[in-house]
Amino acid sequence: MARPTFTLTRRVEFHETDAAGLMHFSNFYRWMEVCEHEWFRVLGLEIMSTGADGGQRGWPRRDSACSHLRPLRCGDVVRIRACVEEVGASSLAYAFVFEKDRAGRWTEVAHGKMTTIHVRKDAAGRMESEPMPPAVRAAFTPAGRPA
Amino acid sequence: MARPTFTLTRRVEFHETDAAGLMHFSNFYRWMEVCEHEWFRVLGLEIMSTGADGGQRGWPRRDSACSHLRPLRCGDVVRIRACVEEVGASSLAYAFVFEKDRAGRWTEVAHGKMTTIHVRKDAAGRMESEPMPPAVRAAFTPAGRPA
Amino acid sequence: MARPTFTLTRRVEFHETDAAGLMHFSNFYRWMEVCEHEWFRVLGLEIMSTGADGGQRGWPRRDSACSHLRPLRCGDVVRIRACVEEVGASSLAYAFVFEKDRAGRWTEVAHGKMTTIHVRKDAAGRMESEPMPPAVRAAFTPAGRPA
Amino acid sequence: MARPTFTLTRRVEFHETDAAGLMHFSNFYRWMEVCEHEWFRVLGLEIMSTGADGGQRGWPRRDSACSHLRPLRCGDVVRIRACVEEVGASSLAYAFVFEKDRAGRWTEVAHGKMTTIHVRKDAAGRMESEPMPPAVRAAFTPAGRPA
Repeated sequence: MARPTFTLTRRVEFHETDAAGLMHFSNFYRWMEVCEHEWFRVLGLEIMSTGADGGQRGWPRRDSACSHLRPLRCGDVVRIRACVEEVGASSLAYAFVFEKDRAGRWTEVAHGKMTTIHVRKDAAGRMESEPMPPAVRAAFTPAGRPA
Repeated sequence: MARPTFTLTRRVEFHETDAAGLMHFSNFYRWMEVCEHEWFRVLGLEIMSTGADGGQRGWPRRDSACSHLRPLRCGDVVRIRACVEEVGASSLAYAFVFEKDRAGRWTEVAHGKMTTIHVRKDAAGRMESEPMPPAVRAAFTPAGRPA
Repeated sequence: MARPTFTLTRRVEFHETDAAGLMHFSNFYRWMEVCEHEWFRVLGLEIMSTGADGGQRGWPRRDSACSHLRPLRCGDVVRIRACVEEVGASSLAYAFVFEKDRAGRWTEVAHGKMTTIHVRKDAAGRMESEPMPPAVRAAFTPAGRPA
Repeated sequence: MARPTFTLTRRVEFHETDAAGLMHFSNFYRWMEVCEHEWFRVLGLEIMSTGADGGQRGWPRRDSACSHLRPLRCGDVVRIRACVEEVGASSLAYAFVFEKDRAGRWTEVAHGKMTTIHVRKDAAGRMESEPMPPAVRAAFTPAGRPA
């Protein structure tokens, strides 16, 4: 059963670096999210939407983590490979590998995880988890396993 | 007629620096906004609110500018002095001076400007300028001039 | 044996929020770092320095993680409580609790972890871990335990 | 005499938005810089380098400004058109137009300016302006005018 995967390539921009000359670690988390959002977009799915009941839906983060093996510098080209490791009733657990182009070879520089929850937001702004839309469930369910 | 003024002191944080070892120039603009918002808060005014008609009010930026004389580095203590230079029907024009603590003396490192517009946002998200609330007008009108 | 602790209070700024109306999750990581750096400063320790051998020293992150229980919104006042959970030869493992002021009571909104490594950077920019300075070791060793 | 121009297309990412649901204005400045850096890269020029004398060279900002006509929202596709308006001895003055794709037509949402200075940084970190490299001067001089 092949897990759904997605790949994004990106270059470290100057405003993403810090005075140590490296990409600031908070940006690895931003890139995980960019990767997640691009994946949704490519699949024709929506990250934020308003339901027929007028309630807004979204996917806030519940947990995230990242481990760093090698630094990234301004101008580095980075490949981010994402996969969905677990599909819950209302949650998606992603794993990410960040790889740097070193003389034509992709070398791992970091890896991370992120779990997001499908929520409904009421008029007062309160969020409650809600089972994810069937289209999202189907898109992220491993091939060969019933969605 | 004394112009209303406000002062904020702040330290350059590591994530605000870049690979040149300096505070990234985009953060001067963020600091102008932090200063504006703190000023509103201290005066008991609201930057974002929902009116009796259900429409949201806010103060998006129309213009901004900044000139840099000296760099800022991680850990530098900076004083930001703001004043309101002009009060229009729906606009506020601010001027800012950024000063660094150099051996006990405040030395100018940058100065900037920012003009904000009071807007009403309808249900579809469209924004239209709207005369500012009388309380805001009164707060930013120079002493001795009729609001 | 009491673990060393540090507390920082901070307000969510507008530029730290996102289109969902909440503080963007990447900023929790920036706040962990701000807390770490403030703690060093208060103790008279340096996060970045140049050694007698001309090599630069620093504390890059090896691992970080954060779990979210409740959202933060623009203007929320947040207390960040940090403690050092483990002092290795060249590593410091921090734990953080983020609490929001709700009607005068601190309510947990998130908790996180971060492990940093003391490194020496050579002229070519290569980083290698190095035992931490004795002053840092002493400062973060629980009271009653030999440093 | 045709002025040198450069175009970059980019999508507004979620972390670039704020609680008003719009792209935060500070990011227009970051995009100006991304545009400048991409332009240098495409021309084979370096934004940061170390000279034969061991001194570092760079291009910090001296002035910047931006005016906003229409908002940008998460997911909007934006075209940034840059041109160099003036080539000084050590300065480059850029102008930028930001356009949003609205139903297949590019509509201006903002325009900005940025002037950068070529500097030499000595070992103590002091920066002094220095005439720009001939290759940069040639690349940004309008066609038909002597560089």
